[in-house]
Amino acid sequence: MSSINYNLSLIKAVVFDIDGVLSPSTIPVAQDGTLLRMANVKDGFALRLATKRGLKIAIISGADCYYMKNRMAPLGVKDIFLNISEKLPVLKQWMTINNLSPEEVAFVGDEITDIPPMNHVALSVAPADAATDVKSIAKYISPVAGGYGVARDLLEQILKAQNSWLDADDSYYW
Amino acid sequence: MSSINYNLSLIKAVVFDIDGVLSPSTIPVAQDGTLLRMANVKDGFALRLATKRGLKIAIISGADCYYMKNRMAPLGVKDIFLNISEKLPVLKQWMTINNLSPEEVAFVGDEITDIPPMNHVALSVAPADAATDVKSIAKYISPVAGGYGVARDLLEQILKAQNSWLDADDSYYW
Amino acid sequence: MSSINYNLSLIKAVVFDIDGVLSPSTIPVAQDGTLLRMANVKDGFALRLATKRGLKIAIISGADCYYMKNRMAPLGVKDIFLNISEKLPVLKQWMTINNLSPEEVAFVGDEITDIPPMNHVALSVAPADAATDVKSIAKYISPVAGGYGVARDLLEQILKAQNSWLDADDSYYW
Amino acid sequence: MSSINYNLSLIKAVVFDIDGVLSPSTIPVAQDGTLLRMANVKDGFALRLATKRGLKIAIISGADCYYMKNRMAPLGVKDIFLNISEKLPVLKQWMTINNLSPEEVAFVGDEITDIPPMNHVALSVAPADAATDVKSIAKYISPVAGGYGVARDLLEQILKAQNSWLDADDSYYW
Repeated sequence: MSSINYNLSLIKAVVFDIDGVLSPSTIPVAQDGTLLRMANVKDGFALRLATKRGLKIAIISGADCYYMKNRMAPLGVKDIFLNISEKLPVLKQWMTINNLSPEEVAFVGDEITDIPPMNHVALSVAPADAATDVKSIAKYISPVAGGYGVARDLLEQILKAQNSWLDADDSYYW
Repeated sequence: MSSINYNLSLIKAVVFDIDGVLSPSTIPVAQDGTLLRMANVKDGFALRLATKRGLKIAIISGADCYYMKNRMAPLGVKDIFLNISEKLPVLKQWMTINNLSPEEVAFVGDEITDIPPMNHVALSVAPADAATDVKSIAKYISPVAGGYGVARDLLEQILKAQNSWLDADDSYYW
Repeated sequence: MSSINYNLSLIKAVVFDIDGVLSPSTIPVAQDGTLLRMANVKDGFALRLATKRGLKIAIISGADCYYMKNRMAPLGVKDIFLNISEKLPVLKQWMTINNLSPEEVAFVGDEITDIPPMNHVALSVAPADAATDVKSIAKYISPVAGGYGVARDLLEQILKAQNSWLDADDSYYW
Repeated sequence: MSSINYNLSLIKAVVFDIDGVLSPSTIPVAQDGTLLRMANVKDGFALRLATKRGLKIAIISGADCYYMKNRMAPLGVKDIFLNISEKLPVLKQWMTINNLSPEEVAFVGDEITDIPPMNHVALSVAPADAATDVKSIAKYISPVAGGYGVARDLLEQILKAQNSWLDADDSYYW
């Protein structure tokens, strides 16, 4: 059923990078020189259903795009760590606070800075257009490029494996 | 002539979702965290000609993108229902008011929340990049992705089947 | 040398549509509901060189995107007709004023509203993603989609056929 | 290891164009008619690591997009020459000031205006979607289109050839 070589019923938490994962690798530049992100609405649906079903979701990004908190809040995603220089310590602390073991966590990353946290969890996931070095260490390479539904691809497979995708009437509401 | 396995001469109304249907799945995020939509100009031509030819058009969306009303008004699309949590009751009420039977209505959707209204009408349509569960129940899967001309693909086939596409001089004006 | 089945040395003028030709078919919607255009920088280079070499360039569009005049002015494109309901009379008048015969003019269009002006000139050109009815009457279908370099494809072939592409030092300046 | 037919250990400096190289060929137009650029975040990572490792980076563009300086400053790219009509004299002066020979410099360009500087250095690089005339003189044609990671493709190959890609802990930080 799933294309991922891992027992997805174990997963209790999924952590995402932003640039190249939830947002595409190529994005607009605002007229003050800051980067503007993009978002995939099918990622949004899956994130919202995942948080409703009790899956823990976090975002750890090196960028300082604080407005993404406004995008994520209505989806139930509240643990958002931005402007992070070194991601592994933040991931470890979040896992400790939430009492999560590496077998229970997936991390989706596309860049060299994501390799340490990806190596720390059991299910490391890379978008189709991730950096070569990232794809070489990822347990699962999604057929979907970053920003074009990679979160949907992963979360849909996890929730289906856990029988919590279309299990209740509220899957069909927004 | 048409690639749709349905008697298109029966269709009197077409209902569209916005995100992933009239606008692409991946879209820009504004600096306040709200999503910005995109539109296809060939969808626009077909929507305008459809309303001129008397086809009833409605939009039912879970999103609160009220500015899309300004985009749609000059195209003759006025029945726009936004911020809708559950789509089926809204569709049913609109069909009752307009005296439409399921055989006369097409619904174009891409997400789980579109499945109940799609199952209520005779001609359910999914963009090429719709969610797997949506494509599995759609009567017609367009070769075109959401936001890149799926409304044009459907409306052009309907109007051609009804001999009202290039039937009059005003098809060549704007 | 050229992939166009027409004697390009005859061409003295090229007329472009905007939406779906100089700008892509799918474009952003601003938060007031108006459409935002996109532009291809390689189209820009070719338009500027074409006007420097004396090729007459005009734009005839049904849209009211007046800010495109600011984009086009530095490229030497000044004959810009916007908000045009019926294109053929505008084309005819422009050709009369500029003393142009149909054999000397190319028209690039992608939509039904472009068919009358395309049928009026000798060299009708459609982008790869033009409407089916437009492609069926076009003399040349570019391999390039609208907004992604179709003007470059055409103008480069015309100027090369007229030995005025890389003929002088100023081709290498901006 | 590298797909580039040049001894990359010789390279001490890389010079980039903006439009069609660091930013895609098709970009949004702002409502005042100016062009808005886009950027690739994986280009950004590679530019930042390159400047940290001592590779000299410059940008020479015909455009006047001064806000790109704000995008580039945090990546360590400070030699940015904008609004340049003729690129070769600027390149020569920059090479003289930095004591660089042609064998030590790569230039990445996509347009006719980039041909003179590309012909001046040993390693001329063109994106996959560069102008035909540019691709015909380029020593290396990247498989990646302009704005979608061509800088990453080149810089990653250079730094790997120089053993300075993942050579230190700070490759994994931001």
